[in-house]
Amino acid sequence: MNPDIVKERRNATFDVETLTNILDGGPEKTSRRREIESLVLNDPDFKEQDPNFLSRSERYEQAVRKSAQMILKLREYGIADPEEIYCYKRCVHRDRPEPLDLHLGMFLPTLLNQATPEQMDRFFMPAWNLEIIGTYAQTEIGHGTHLRGLETTATYDPATQEFVLNSPTVSSIKWWPGGLGKTSNHAIVLAQLYTQGNCHGLHAFITPIRDMDTHQPLPGIVVGDIGPKFGFNEVDNGFLKLENVRIPRENMLMKFAKVEPDGTYVKPPSAKLTYGTMVFIRSMIVGDSARCLAKACTISIRYSAVRHQSEIRPGDPEPQILDYQTQQHKLFPLLATAYAFTYVGQYMHDTYQRISGDINAGDFSELPELHALSAGLKAFTSWIANAGIEVCRMSCGGHGYSRSSGLPDIYVEFTPSCTYEGENTVMMLQTARYLVKSYRQAKAGKQLNGIVSYLSEARHGRVQPQPVAARPRVVDINDLASLVEAYKLRAANLVELAAKSIQQELQHRKSQEDAWNNSAIELVRSSDAHCHYVVVKLFTDKLGEISDTAVHSVMSTLALLYALHGITKNSGDFLQAGLLTVPQVLQISTRVKELLSQLRPNTVALVDAFDFHDMKLNSVLGRYDGNVYENMFEWARNSPLNTTEVHESFHKYLKPLRAKL
Amino acid sequence: MNPDIVKERRNATFDVETLTNILDGGPEKTSRRREIESLVLNDPDFKEQDPNFLSRSERYEQAVRKSAQMILKLREYGIADPEEIYCYKRCVHRDRPEPLDLHLGMFLPTLLNQATPEQMDRFFMPAWNLEIIGTYAQTEIGHGTHLRGLETTATYDPATQEFVLNSPTVSSIKWWPGGLGKTSNHAIVLAQLYTQGNCHGLHAFITPIRDMDTHQPLPGIVVGDIGPKFGFNEVDNGFLKLENVRIPRENMLMKFAKVEPDGTYVKPPSAKLTYGTMVFIRSMIVGDSARCLAKACTISIRYSAVRHQSEIRPGDPEPQILDYQTQQHKLFPLLATAYAFTYVGQYMHDTYQRISGDINAGDFSELPELHALSAGLKAFTSWIANAGIEVCRMSCGGHGYSRSSGLPDIYVEFTPSCTYEGENTVMMLQTARYLVKSYRQAKAGKQLNGIVSYLSEARHGRVQPQPVAARPRVVDINDLASLVEAYKLRAANLVELAAKSIQQELQHRKSQEDAWNNSAIELVRSSDAHCHYVVVKLFTDKLGEISDTAVHSVMSTLALLYALHGITKNSGDFLQAGLLTVPQVLQISTRVKELLSQLRPNTVALVDAFDFHDMKLNSVLGRYDGNVYENMFEWARNSPLNTTEVHESFHKYLKPLRAKL
Repeated sequence: MNPDIVKERRNATFDVETLTNILDGGPEKTSRRREIESLVLNDPDFKEQDPNFLSRSERYEQAVRKSAQMILKLREYGIADPEEIYCYKRCVHRDRPEPLDLHLGMFLPTLLNQATPEQMDRFFMPAWNLEIIGTYAQTEIGHGTHLRGLETTATYDPATQEFVLNSPTVSSIKWWPGGLGKTSNHAIVLAQLYTQGNCHGLHAFITPIRDMDTHQPLPGIVVGDIGPKFGFNEVDNGFLKLENVRIPRENMLMKFAKVEPDGTYVKPPSAKLTYGTMVFIRSMIVGDSARCLAKACTISIRYSAVRHQSEIRPGDPEPQILDYQTQQHKLFPLLATAYAFTYVGQYMHDTYQRISGDINAGDFSELPELHALSAGLKAFTSWIANAGIEVCRMSCGGHGYSRSSGLPDIYVEFTPSCTYEGENTVMMLQTARYLVKSYRQAKAGKQLNGIVSYLSEARHGRVQPQPVAARPRVVDINDLASLVEAYKLRAANLVELAAKSIQQELQHRKSQEDAWNNSAIELVRSSDAHCHYVVVKLFTDKLGEISDTAVHSVMSTLALLYALHGITKNSGDFLQAGLLTVPQVLQISTRVKELLSQLRPNTVALVDAFDFHDMKLNSVLGRYDGNVYENMFEWARNSPLNTTEVHESFHKYLKPLRAKL
Repeated sequence: MNPDIVKERRNATFDVETLTNILDGGPEKTSRRREIESLVLNDPDFKEQDPNFLSRSERYEQAVRKSAQMILKLREYGIADPEEIYCYKRCVHRDRPEPLDLHLGMFLPTLLNQATPEQMDRFFMPAWNLEIIGTYAQTEIGHGTHLRGLETTATYDPATQEFVLNSPTVSSIKWWPGGLGKTSNHAIVLAQLYTQGNCHGLHAFITPIRDMDTHQPLPGIVVGDIGPKFGFNEVDNGFLKLENVRIPRENMLMKFAKVEPDGTYVKPPSAKLTYGTMVFIRSMIVGDSARCLAKACTISIRYSAVRHQSEIRPGDPEPQILDYQTQQHKLFPLLATAYAFTYVGQYMHDTYQRISGDINAGDFSELPELHALSAGLKAFTSWIANAGIEVCRMSCGGHGYSRSSGLPDIYVEFTPSCTYEGENTVMMLQTARYLVKSYRQAKAGKQLNGIVSYLSEARHGRVQPQPVAARPRVVDINDLASLVEAYKLRAANLVELAAKSIQQELQHRKSQEDAWNNSAIELVRSSDAHCHYVVVKLFTDKLGEISDTAVHSVMSTLALLYALHGITKNSGDFLQAGLLTVPQVLQISTRVKELLSQLRPNTVALVDAFDFHDMKLNSVLGRYDGNVYENMFEWARNSPLNTTEVHESFHKYLKPLRAKL
């Protein structure tokens, strides 16, 4: 064990295990999680070659091998609880996406939600037993977030009682679905349904794409891998071109909408029935943001504790880089953010669980707020985690660029979260739509409920920009409740500014739609401020649940740092809204520096509490024992370019060159 | 040609070629650049396989092959001007780093600058003719930016008149030098010189590491590749462990410092002699930042012109995504930044050229300012370009994640600029040191010269934070000269805040060094504001050189957007310093939106003017002809995973699994 990191752990003022238990949701959950993790990590069948040393084809193959093992073992051990399966799976694939993700996460659930009993009989057990391997083919090369724009067609032919599926244009080729390229033999294809001469919009069709026995593509199917990407090397994201592919009428998922044998279309009872899954997945991304940022913080903070560099006082030994104020200022606010997002992720998870029964029973009353919140928070947290991971990586100096650090992989596996399941800017605008609507309702005198209720309170002439000096100084910069209030009023101010911008555009005789588009910058800003308020609030609320005094104390410091650092980054908003004075902003900068020093002795313990096993962290810089350099040297020596001392290109090109010069 | 992109070009209000000529420095320079580019791009010897489809070893080999060809052809064509060589080389390797970079860019120049005539005879021609292939081995696994911390030793043994080189610890293993892993047979090793029992600090030693004939590592040399990285897949960044390696006394580079045969050490005449190269390379990175950001803007803006998605007005066809205000707000300020950094890069280049004669003649009077400026601007521009490239990538939706977009490669090849040649935070602090020193001199009554002279002007009680209302409203938000003034005063205010922070820390009886470290956040902020001021100023100055009215007009709009957008991102600073009022900040937001609309018709033409050849851009999204989707489909079909219809893992793992379930 590296002595620096031992010293750091000795200096912590709280018990790490207590905090880990809080993060897991109780000591018994911690121990069950570790039990599942050790099932995987001690299992020789899941030993892997470092993917960094493999070709893409080898990486894909290794992942398929492990996925197949995983399916067998989950049944062997009888692990059936979805959260436990998820935990096991993440451990098997070390948090990397894998070829069966869409089979397990989209194909099977979609059958469960949208298949008729007859379809369940025909498809579910074969899919459960991996005879049918499926994916979910929605996005097209020319079409992403805007579903109505999808071009794939499914035209009903009553003569044969079949649907005829087609990709009528290049831009309609299905593109991106995971597992489509090589792994799947079926796809749930989203296509515009045509019957009796009318288009009835998007519906889902179970489409065989490869022969069940030979795995060769079926007639009319052009399918393959979309090629290398920024990450996701284990996954065969694919393309699918459909050329007059005929499937039986009974392959349309018909639990809700139907096409009768004669071609008559029967509408679904509600459009909101598939809405819940989307909300669920976006809520999950909030948790992913927290976890990925927490991993990056673990690596960079542990490494900063063992890395010595440069000098603060001449003649002294080189200090730990964690002692530099600039390093603390890069990393500690991100650590606070990782904790904040963890609690927000838990809140979203719990809220979804709480109302999912209602949703299934057809009660959608709480859904709009949760939908707006999950859209905005998905964007807010994934953008910040995305940028934060890179700050962590760059805080590790040169070694952050090495694949051995684990940081490049965390980034490339995480960054698609900013785009998939709803492009972030579009998500922010969806939340803004809810905020502006709520604001208008409040203005019209309606009392708002839930998390946007502040838009009612704030409507008492508060948010006119006016000189700072004229404002009462209400904010106590050391009081979290007061800071939550300040964030709330900032959000209210920005929602009002956005609404006014729309109003002004309308007065210039713009259409509703152009007024909206011409206010989009302000709208995104208002969503951002709303989400920021929610995060500060939920972090503050969480403190009330922590009874351990020592943990409570360090969490309060983190929450205060999160709130105050956010103000320094957005001081213009708070000054503009007259919520803070110039001297207060200067005080906050000073206070942030004090908090950095105050947190310094606890930061290694704070990342330890996330409890990432070394095999999951997969980083020489982030090792629990801090023995970085010897392990980095050993890792490098195993790199494939070192299997021979002399690379063949020397004999082929460099040596012959001499004779020619 | 895609009709959307044709329409965009037709709508431009200025002549693209005129602007390209301005960027190149004159029409004759444009035509010479194109001539060199076509020499490479039409040469079948430089045809390459898409590196995305190759293994790392194949990528390295392809790069070695091209480098060898390049050396031959440069001599064949008689291209000898350094800038033309650089242009040719960048074209050969499509802007990717390559295995001979350090041989050409560090080994040969270091010989030229630091070798004695006898050493030139022995080493230069063999190196020129690639018998000797060298690298520059400075950084160690445990030591980067802080050179004094390097641990490698070179101990003089007068008995044999040799130096004995050693890597005494794991942390002293040389790490990162390009071309060290596989390519080089010599290294210039930076080591602590010990002679007659004393350490004389870092000196450079020409060290043979591989047999000239067999290329096998020599005795006592442990050398290899450091393994895969975030980018730089063509380069064999290497490690080097020295175990009692003996080299002749004459292999120490002795143009300046010397060790006599008896071991007597002779000091160099000036420590600043190797200073100029560092400044030169950092100045180059400013230009790199501009070029990489310009490429990313080219790809994302062209793609945004051909991509249709979603709807602004219901019932209308899907609009070009370039029509969304949020997309404009992401991309156009970055386009303005790419132009700003291009001009700053030219300024740094010209300034360096202007004073390099003085430097070589031993006149270092202008060097401190240029050193401070190059350090800060290297950090400022590389950080902003780094983040900007990712914004461009994410603005392309899902396809930005595909390697076919070219954007992931631009990012991973560029991002190390934030760390190499001086870690960015350290660079910012170096500039801050110069600023604080200048501020103190100004306070002591000295009249400052050069770019920091504003610290004298600003010292008339201006920069006390005080209520906004008490300040005169001097800034005209539509006048660039007035905005330059505002940026200047913002910088002056932040330099003063940093200096005061140090003063306060000293009053709390902190040492100079602790006071500095405890003010590091303010110091970085002050450097950042200083650099921002310099960029706004240089962009504004550049406008005076542009005589073409149409180009002048669009460049003025870009400069205004750059300045005003920067204020919206840092409005707290301007409000705090009392430089702007709250209503002005709101007006600026509105003005930014107007400028986005105003620029909209010219943006495709503005990226065209950068004149990146399609083969250099290497992006299906950024193609000049806008034919994106068909080419993306074709690219995907060539991906190695598609060479067979059925991946062997189906037969090995997936099919056998069925029987077990």
